[in-house]
Amino acid sequence: MSAIDDLTTELARLPGIGRKSAQRLTYHLLKQNADQSRRLAQALVTLVETVKPCTRCFNLTEAALCSLCTDARRDASLVCVVEDAADIAAIERAGEFRGRYHVLGGRLSPLDGVGPDDLTIAALLARVPDDQIVEVIVATNPSLEGEATALYVQRQLAPLGVRVTRIARGLPVGGDLEYADGVTIAQALQARRDM
Amino acid sequence: MSAIDDLTTELARLPGIGRKSAQRLTYHLLKQNADQSRRLAQALVTLVETVKPCTRCFNLTEAALCSLCTDARRDASLVCVVEDAADIAAIERAGEFRGRYHVLGGRLSPLDGVGPDDLTIAALLARVPDDQIVEVIVATNPSLEGEATALYVQRQLAPLGVRVTRIARGLPVGGDLEYADGVTIAQALQARRDM
Repeated sequence: MSAIDDLTTELARLPGIGRKSAQRLTYHLLKQNADQSRRLAQALVTLVETVKPCTRCFNLTEAALCSLCTDARRDASLVCVVEDAADIAAIERAGEFRGRYHVLGGRLSPLDGVGPDDLTIAALLARVPDDQIVEVIVATNPSLEGEATALYVQRQLAPLGVRVTRIARGLPVGGDLEYADGVTIAQALQARRDM
Repeated sequence: MSAIDDLTTELARLPGIGRKSAQRLTYHLLKQNADQSRRLAQALVTLVETVKPCTRCFNLTEAALCSLCTDARRDASLVCVVEDAADIAAIERAGEFRGRYHVLGGRLSPLDGVGPDDLTIAALLARVPDDQIVEVIVATNPSLEGEATALYVQRQLAPLGVRVTRIARGLPVGGDLEYADGVTIAQALQARRDM
């Protein structure tokens, strides 16, 4: 039956959802009110149509500037650099950081063909004078590629005279920032060190 | 940000997907080509608009009769009664059964307010003379409610003079037919007994 197979196939493309889970989800949706599937479909379409990168920090937003960039209570001179927008949500949950962000859009990964030009590093360098940034906290993941990316970002920033710090290794090496708990993230922020 | 929260909320309604997984899926979709989200949305809408219960057996189908009811090679006199349409897929994977099906649409559950009139039992009774059914295999789940439903169905069928059998307890008691492996389902079908 093509409609069931089609939805199962699309759901199985999602990370962490195998073929059998996808089939179970499909049958679950068929047992629910059709409105639930329609709401989910509408939310998907709205998402891809309205959510874009913030023109300043590349966080995801429905406006030109994200809510963190327009929040005057946040310290514009302190910028936390992360790999992905999802990492911002994780750091915000920790409630420790009151500065702004910069989303690189990934990490340096020569094997995957991701070089400096594929990340928003040039935009970050331009922000340092524009936004009068005093300190950049590099919060890329504590993985091999995340560390290499941090080192690259630090070397690019060094000539600009800005203080560059690295989030402390309170995070388990090889782990993923997005899954870290708030307390660990808060401690890692407090114990940040100069690079 | 409402579009991200909306999709996260809708995804978190699905069984087995918590708030954090839903958020991760949302950010995953934002990193993918927008076409992937659109295809998923389209598959959801197509599903709820085209898939309906088979007018004879209540299996899910895009036509008036499902592909199993229209397959002339299947034995119409042998009917396997299941709780949900998803159970048919599980039994078909076992490759043991060559008869037809009848989907009850759930199980008797007084606590949840599900009584005999909420299931397709009347339609099953009407099928016995209409389709000249010789044997009904009751393959409701081997749970407390599934057994109670099986007993009720058997008592309703008894006056019609049809043979009523119960799928063997090769399935672990308390288990879920949908997750059983093919070999177990095949053995359970072979060892069916009269009720």
